[in-house]
Amino acid sequence: MNPVTPKSPDAESRSRYLGVDPGLNRTGYAVFERGRTGPILLEGGVVRSTRGLTVAARVLEIGQGIREVVEQYRPAVMAIEQVFSTGQFPKSALLMAHARGAILYAAAEAQIEIVHYTPRQIKRLLTGSGKASKDQVQRAVQNELHLREVLEPNDVADAAAVALCHYYSSRVLQ
Amino acid sequence: MNPVTPKSPDAESRSRYLGVDPGLNRTGYAVFERGRTGPILLEGGVVRSTRGLTVAARVLEIGQGIREVVEQYRPAVMAIEQVFSTGQFPKSALLMAHARGAILYAAAEAQIEIVHYTPRQIKRLLTGSGKASKDQVQRAVQNELHLREVLEPNDVADAAAVALCHYYSSRVLQ
Repeated sequence: MNPVTPKSPDAESRSRYLGVDPGLNRTGYAVFERGRTGPILLEGGVVRSTRGLTVAARVLEIGQGIREVVEQYRPAVMAIEQVFSTGQFPKSALLMAHARGAILYAAAEAQIEIVHYTPRQIKRLLTGSGKASKDQVQRAVQNELHLREVLEPNDVADAAAVALCHYYSSRVLQ
Repeated sequence: MNPVTPKSPDAESRSRYLGVDPGLNRTGYAVFERGRTGPILLEGGVVRSTRGLTVAARVLEIGQGIREVVEQYRPAVMAIEQVFSTGQFPKSALLMAHARGAILYAAAEAQIEIVHYTPRQIKRLLTGSGKASKDQVQRAVQNELHLREVLEPNDVADAAAVALCHYYSSRVLQ
């Protein structure tokens, strides 16, 4: 209502962004806020689905879990890795795509902006090289967030990587 | 409430089942009811997504379209083809899996039972052969429904095929 107020709840959630690393078994997420000196990690976590349930029940668990994070933090943007190829494990890729479809559905229904980055973009923005190893990306995330150790588990580190990629690419655009 | 009443609205929707042929551009659906002499097609149609929109916006359109069909007819069961491999077109298969994930999410959220059939099961139950051609399956659907011509478009015929597969396989179980 008053654009001079620097920290209305609305302005806060506009400066928040969510990174997601989708998977049918486990989906990592990381919620950030734009701080004055850089990105601040508000929460990182994993949404798990129940082993033994049907794919439908599991995509519901994953999508609803991300939906809850969105409702709690009201980020302006969800950043998620773009996937074009199935790699060496077509069946795993298809299951991941099911989870990704459910996450996109849940986030689109919650009306937040969704942006995609390719693995190459994420690596380049974080390390300077589109061909960086997984280790190099994780160390870049660690450095950005001034952590003593690598962010664990992997799913959260990967979710943080795509979120940080969004932070840097949208900063460049501004 | 009264188990003697043969046609309460509840009994009606318990005898209804929905077949779905998922796709990101177009998703076919067919709603059936168990009639005294066989399956009755109540409605067949296609949910389309808008070309040029993002994948997230498109899976939302597809999922919400199927959700509307579920809410209108309240089928007891949604039958959908099982997909295990990416075939010759990995990218198309991944996009289809996104749509399928969103459909499963929307249907699971609406709390209807979801059953899966492999292409082989569908072909075998409709034609007697797990290796039947697409044409043979479509003619079998035409015969089952006593239609003068093949059901059009293809997406609706494929949705009807998986629904009829459910009809026959669950009849065998009873």
